[in-house]
Order: sequence, then structure tokens, then C-alpha cells
Amino acid sequence: MAGRNAVTEALRGGRPADALFVAREGAAGGSLRAIVALAKARGVVVKDAKREKLAQLCGTDHHQGVVLTVAARAYVELEDILDIAQEKNETPFLVLCDGIEDPHNLGAVIRTAEAAGAHGVVMPQRRSAPLSQAVARASAGAVEYIPVARVANLCAAMEELKSRGLWFYGADMAGEPYDAKPITGAIALVIGAEGRGLGRLVKERCDALLALPMRGQVNSLNASVAAGILLYEMAKYR
Amino acid sequence: MAGRNAVTEALRGGRPADALFVAREGAAGGSLRAIVALAKARGVVVKDAKREKLAQLCGTDHHQGVVLTVAARAYVELEDILDIAQEKNETPFLVLCDGIEDPHNLGAVIRTAEAAGAHGVVMPQRRSAPLSQAVARASAGAVEYIPVARVANLCAAMEELKSRGLWFYGADMAGEPYDAKPITGAIALVIGAEGRGLGRLVKERCDALLALPMRGQVNSLNASVAAGILLYEMAKYR
Repeated sequence: MAGRNAVTEALRGGRPADALFVAREGAAGGSLRAIVALAKARGVVVKDAKREKLAQLCGTDHHQGVVLTVAARAYVELEDILDIAQEKNETPFLVLCDGIEDPHNLGAVIRTAEAAGAHGVVMPQRRSAPLSQAVARASAGAVEYIPVARVANLCAAMEELKSRGLWFYGADMAGEPYDAKPITGAIALVIGAEGRGLGRLVKERCDALLALPMRGQVNSLNASVAAGILLYEMAKYR
Repeated sequence: MAGRNAVTEALRGGRPADALFVAREGAAGGSLRAIVALAKARGVVVKDAKREKLAQLCGTDHHQGVVLTVAARAYVELEDILDIAQEKNETPFLVLCDGIEDPHNLGAVIRTAEAAGAHGVVMPQRRSAPLSQAVARASAGAVEYIPVARVANLCAAMEELKSRGLWFYGADMAGEPYDAKPITGAIALVIGAEGRGLGRLVKERCDALLALPMRGQVNSLNASVAAGILLYEMAKYR
């Protein structure tokens, strides 16, 4: 959604939004500032961007310096994911994405999580691709079937889930071999961004770290491939 | 590489090429016909394409109706891959890609094959993404470490490899559970294109078909994710 009036109305109407992209260079300031303030009041992430980025996001040059991205599907609450597990009479099985910013990777992780039988995906509000149409496409429609929660703070979400009995397994090269022992109970896999890996605070909150053997020269796998191998290993014991 | 003179010289010089893309509509015929004939004589695949496709491939409109795509790395022969396994004193472990046309997927499969300790990747000349720069990027550099063979006919390559003692495991939803029994010996995983799956003739030549359980609503995984889960399962027994 682009243009100052359209974006203002969407924000006023409380439409669930992912992020507001603003191009401030060369723009008349007054109404932009009002839109930014409104977005912040609604809890929408505000990001500075170049005009070309905005044109790319909305497919036109007529964006007047603002583009609001809207989720392809509504986010759920953490609690909803736990409820789904309970309704199915299954121990919770979750996937946490720590800063996966590539829409293709995020979509593939969501698709794989759904296929592996996970109850939901959790991702942070910042430093993550939003649940955009590109993510929905890359998920091959899986976003329709598996709930996704977006949380303000991934560490706080981990603490909350820990109090509910979940154990966290982080994908990390420094971990123990991923298939060394059976993984059972109420669990969550935590996947970091390619290159950067898990954040320090997230890693500290993991109960165990799982490593995939690298038998060649490359030292990492695509995030969605790593998630797939680990999720299917975990699913074996469910 | 674009333009009639540059492409002609590259073909005459025997430069390893993936495919010649030709836009015939509205083009003066004589020299184009000569280039097509030269490409065919050199065994280069010739593909008709629209002028926009050509512009996209070479990044400019100045292509004069011809674009020659060059491999990011030289292809090897099937025999070279078996030699590598022998030098390492290991039983052969190969990956065959049956018509993976998406460069990101092909690159991710190559990357995963390298990480899982496979000796090489085999792909057909037609109906497959070539070993382009895009594939090299998606492989995160793995194309530098794992050899890729391109064969005129995948079924013939399978027959040849069978005579050398290889067993073929095809990824297919109609197969037996992928982790039902240990997979040992000289093996190759055969991965089909997303959506289409394995070709009939390729599937018939597989010694066994392996299925990944789909515990949710989606009925398939991303090709590189499926390859990753299967390759890491196979690698457990090596």
C-alpha cells in the first residue's frame, strides 16, 4: 500500500501492518512526520528507505515517499500456538526464526515446519522478513496452515515458553552432533540467519545446540535446508 | 556474452558454453542462422527466446538477438566423479538432479551435496539450470569444491553408473519411508524438479523410492530441502 492518504487511512483503521517504509530525502516533511508518528503509535515498525526501494516494494513510482507493507496472513499470539498443540493432544513442537531476512528462506522454513508437523512458527518483529506475499509464495501456501506469531522480543518469548515447559534446541556449528541422542518432549528449534547465525542472547537461552556435520569445504547450509534436516530429525521421535 | 561477433568468436574458439539463446523475431536471418549452426556443431544447446529474455540474461539491449551463457565452472565427466571417490577410498555417493530449472534450488542442492560429503553432482544438458553465476552464488561457493557433470541423457548416465555398481534412490512421495532402513554402499540420490517430480523413465531406473512424511497439509518440500534431509540421512551410514 502506497501514498500518504492511503497509508494514513490504513493506519487509522488499525489494519494489521508489517512495516512502514519512508523515504525522507527530498520529501516535504509535515505529513510524513504525522504518518511516522501514527505508525509508531500503532506499534508498526518504521524503516528508512531509498525511493527506489519504495518503488520496488509497491511496483510504482507514485508512492509519495511512504509504503506500508501488509501481512499476507494475520499473525497469531504465542498462546494460540500452544493451544493448537493442546487441542491436538500433542506436546508442543515450534520453530523460532532468529532474524531470517530473506523472504525465500523464511517461506521455505515455514513450508518445512508445516510438513514436519510443527504447531507454529515464531519470529521477531525486527530483523526478520515480514509475512509478505513473497514469503507466502515461497511457503507454497503453507502460511495458510501453520500459524505464525510475531513477537517484540524473541528472548522474552523464549523465557515465556520455557516457563511453559519448552526446551530450546539452537542450530549452531559449535553444538553437539544433531543426531547424537533422541530429542523428545515439548521442543522448539531455533534457526538463525545465514551468515550471522544465532544472536548471542538467543543462543544463551538455548538448552542445547545442535550441529550438522560439514563433510566438505563449505561451512554452512542454507537456513531452510538446515532447518529441514533438524526438523525431520526431531520429528522422528514424535 | 552477447552480440553476433562476440558469440561467433567464443563458439569458434571452443569456449565451454551452456546454451545459446536466440531471438529470431524481426531479426535479419543470415548471420543468426550461421551462429545457430555453429553452436549446434559444438554441441551447445540452442534455445529460442524473446528479446526481453535476452536483455535480462546479458543486462543490456545490445545483444543483436544472440546471448551465449557460459558456465561458472567447467563441467567434469562422470568418470571423474567416480575417480574422486576412488582416490578418497570411499564408496561413491552421488546426487542426480532431474530437471531442476531454478538456479537457487540447483545451487542449494550443490551446496548441500558438498556439505553432506557427496563426490559429485550429475545433471542433464536440457531441462536444467546451467552452472551459471546465479547457481554458483546460490551454492555459496560450493561449485568450487564439488564436481558437476552434465550429461546428454540422464537415463543413459544411470545405466552406465549402474554397471559400475551404483544403486539409485529416487525422492518420491510414493516411496517407502526414507528412514525405514539403513542405506549403504555405492549410492546416488535422484532429486526431481519441484512440482513435476521425477521423470517416468528416470523413476523406472531407480532401485528404490524414498518418501518424506508430510505431516501437515502441504504435499511437498522445496527440492533443496528434500535433498538435504535425504542426503543427511544417507550420510549417517557412511
